[in-house]
Amino acid sequence: MIQYCNHCAATVVFTIPPGDSLARHVCPACGHIQYENPRLVVGCVAEWEGRILLCRRAIEPRLGYWTLPAGFMENGETTAQAAARETLEEAGARIAMDAPFAMISIAHINQVHLFYRGRMSSPDFAAGEESLEVSLCRPEDIPWTDLAFRSVSLCLEYYLADRASGRYGFHEAALLPA
Amino acid sequence: MIQYCNHCAATVVFTIPPGDSLARHVCPACGHIQYENPRLVVGCVAEWEGRILLCRRAIEPRLGYWTLPAGFMENGETTAQAAARETLEEAGARIAMDAPFAMISIAHINQVHLFYRGRMSSPDFAAGEESLEVSLCRPEDIPWTDLAFRSVSLCLEYYLADRASGRYGFHEAALLPA
Repeated sequence: MIQYCNHCAATVVFTIPPGDSLARHVCPACGHIQYENPRLVVGCVAEWEGRILLCRRAIEPRLGYWTLPAGFMENGETTAQAAARETLEEAGARIAMDAPFAMISIAHINQVHLFYRGRMSSPDFAAGEESLEVSLCRPEDIPWTDLAFRSVSLCLEYYLADRASGRYGFHEAALLPA
Repeated sequence: MIQYCNHCAATVVFTIPPGDSLARHVCPACGHIQYENPRLVVGCVAEWEGRILLCRRAIEPRLGYWTLPAGFMENGETTAQAAARETLEEAGARIAMDAPFAMISIAHINQVHLFYRGRMSSPDFAAGEESLEVSLCRPEDIPWTDLAFRSVSLCLEYYLADRASGRYGFHEAALLPA
């Protein structure tokens, strides 16, 4: 919870600034406003010879569950660069990103999850610090009941359906609290 | 520039936290980390009887220039809700959102611009506080040299090309510093 100005250390006030419509953390001393906005989580569904790259989480939340490689987008990068970086960090795999594939708003946790489709440049992979293990998983072996997040399940459902139809689209969805 | 912890007001240190790979503003007193991440700017290309809804900006940056209705996504909303809210605020228009249409990364300003396609529910519109005027613009009358942002120009170019082809896709791009 924001209590102090990060520019001058004065105690902030939670109030609607002039010309705005929502309450913000405003500094009465220096005027600085600390905005809070949704964060982008970016990842990918990457294939090698028909198998899909999955990571088993070594960190909370959902430690021990399986997920697509993904993580918070950083300043100074594009969405495609974020997807590639996260996949390299978590799965030790280099990916040629094809196209954005799914965008899932999760308003109650202030996140937007964005997944690309991609192809592994080689069959090489290795668990990064945030992964217990990494696997190239056949579609019929996807551990549906051990997936970490609903956005990951939804993205994989879209992916397998599109793959079966032979035509990949761009999918948008919103998840409500479980 | 972040100098103080917004939880406890101690002076922060810019350092790489354990297990991380990038420097963050870390509080040596309470351990709180102030992350900075890219922000989503969300808007739409909305039509009424073949005309496109444009706003002339009443605020900096690019005061006086024309733009698509768009603005910073807020916590607690979906991307589609953000697009609808911004269009109502800036252009006084209610929009049925069709589908995400363009996503443009602008890494050097830490933003991702996302535009939906939409249809106005009625021909009603009115300039909001952030707009000098609002117009339903025929494609041949788009003020290309007076558009506010390159992402807006690019989105409108994609839109008119797709409209001419009779098939709307989802477009991804990245803009470099001008």
